[in-house]
Amino acid sequence: MRKSQSSENFSNKIVLNKGKENFIEIEEIVRYSETDQMGVAHNKNYFEWFEIGRTEYCRQKNIPYKNIEAQGYYLVVVEAYCKYKKPLRYDEKFIIRIFLEKITPKKVVFAYELVTKEDKELIASGYTVHIVTNSKAQTRSLPPHIIDGLKAS
Amino acid sequence: MRKSQSSENFSNKIVLNKGKENFIEIEEIVRYSETDQMGVAHNKNYFEWFEIGRTEYCRQKNIPYKNIEAQGYYLVVVEAYCKYKKPLRYDEKFIIRIFLEKITPKKVVFAYELVTKEDKELIASGYTVHIVTNSKAQTRSLPPHIIDGLKAS
Amino acid sequence: MRKSQSSENFSNKIVLNKGKENFIEIEEIVRYSETDQMGVAHNKNYFEWFEIGRTEYCRQKNIPYKNIEAQGYYLVVVEAYCKYKKPLRYDEKFIIRIFLEKITPKKVVFAYELVTKEDKELIASGYTVHIVTNSKAQTRSLPPHIIDGLKAS
Amino acid sequence: MRKSQSSENFSNKIVLNKGKENFIEIEEIVRYSETDQMGVAHNKNYFEWFEIGRTEYCRQKNIPYKNIEAQGYYLVVVEAYCKYKKPLRYDEKFIIRIFLEKITPKKVVFAYELVTKEDKELIASGYTVHIVTNSKAQTRSLPPHIIDGLKAS
Repeated sequence: MRKSQSSENFSNKIVLNKGKENFIEIEEIVRYSETDQMGVAHNKNYFEWFEIGRTEYCRQKNIPYKNIEAQGYYLVVVEAYCKYKKPLRYDEKFIIRIFLEKITPKKVVFAYELVTKEDKELIASGYTVHIVTNSKAQTRSLPPHIIDGLKAS
Repeated sequence: MRKSQSSENFSNKIVLNKGKENFIEIEEIVRYSETDQMGVAHNKNYFEWFEIGRTEYCRQKNIPYKNIEAQGYYLVVVEAYCKYKKPLRYDEKFIIRIFLEKITPKKVVFAYELVTKEDKELIASGYTVHIVTNSKAQTRSLPPHIIDGLKAS
Repeated sequence: MRKSQSSENFSNKIVLNKGKENFIEIEEIVRYSETDQMGVAHNKNYFEWFEIGRTEYCRQKNIPYKNIEAQGYYLVVVEAYCKYKKPLRYDEKFIIRIFLEKITPKKVVFAYELVTKEDKELIASGYTVHIVTNSKAQTRSLPPHIIDGLKAS
Repeated sequence: MRKSQSSENFSNKIVLNKGKENFIEIEEIVRYSETDQMGVAHNKNYFEWFEIGRTEYCRQKNIPYKNIEAQGYYLVVVEAYCKYKKPLRYDEKFIIRIFLEKITPKKVVFAYELVTKEDKELIASGYTVHIVTNSKAQTRSLPPHIIDGLKAS
């Protein structure tokens, strides 16, 4: 077996500053198919919930992600991170909070918190980093109307 | 909308030291259902591949994860991270490398690299952090025979 | 290669009689991760939507499926069928209609229709057949209060 | 709530004739993420396994499905059915048998059996019906070289 070619380290020191006013909240519910044999929602589903969250963030800013893609801009995921604090069970309702953490023409960072519906206890938190490409995966820059629209309160 | 209650930041500075000899490799292939409308494997699947990887790591060390759970030890995912470098397409074969990055009685860290089958180009890399619990989600300590078995070359 | 041992044929002649009053409707939306490289929702997701549908059917009859399982009754899927008429695209809203097609102490059949939100055009239809078991997969009979509750208009 | 507009019934009387010599077998294993809280593989995964199966069927006939799509032919799923006989558990290896049940220029039917690795006991069986379209979802006819290739023993 060969030696690992990568000497990369994960000093992914993204320091999020989520204590801002500008975020949106949506409610979701755990599907039966999202549980695993441990009886809780499987870890991969959180990344699907993050994605649902940013879709709704864009929609609520009146720039549906569908339209962003239709204009030829793709927000390709280049990093994804989740920290799991409390398990989620079948049929449990929870809140997803979505924060636009950073937006430049070339890069967008969304942060997320999942909290319980009643007491707003933290279930999980995380972020996704996106670069902007065209449909052929070549990097390009987001136009101001999209940047400004997504930043608007 | 309320202010975020969390002031948490993600200074998840895990510095991986993957240049070690002790890792295993398995081959996987992209399923049609794992692609999305961008024509590439969806980001959540990588976390499923990481999981397949650590299952195989444990098996190759003669401690199938199934048996670890049967003995009452659960390696619960508390953090998961992935960095995406190159897209994967339908029916593409690739290699998953799994590294046991750290193991203590209370905590296990696996690191992963996905590389192309031919040129061993990096497709993605990441890690998962696990705590050890019993079937009731209470923390407990891994016994030496499991720790030693998983560390064995 | 060996000859197929099964001479089974699929004369699954379930003739559904869905023209009844007693059904419920819920709205769903296609997630990005549910699309595939053909640009439409992947065929397996329909079975997940059917499941979400029957969960909501039970809830609206005041017998959440979670409670049915908590009482020791499992509605195990023994058959699943879907007929696909019209594709669904990312971010498209649609309606799931759920019909309790048949219920006896030992067997439950749900039927489903997916229709477009605006014109109620048929997108897909199907059914699932369930047997009743305990938590050890042994068959048992549903009690009258669950049968009557699920049948109630 | 409105009356169901569909008077459709599911007399899907496909009588399969799987006792033929011409089928292929592949081995698969249940992923942790494919289990649900009942502790067994979730019903939707079987349709993913069927798909992996037909991908491998095409490959073994030297007509990778990827190439079929590259030539502008899409085998769109219009029906899918599965009958579940025995549960599958995490890390269990099993065999998928794939049968080309029927092929005409406009329509292809695959049948499937999942059997245990050791005793070849039936786990599940099912079929998928496909129509042939171009990339714009318009029906078209498969050329003879694809039909003959897929039929070849």
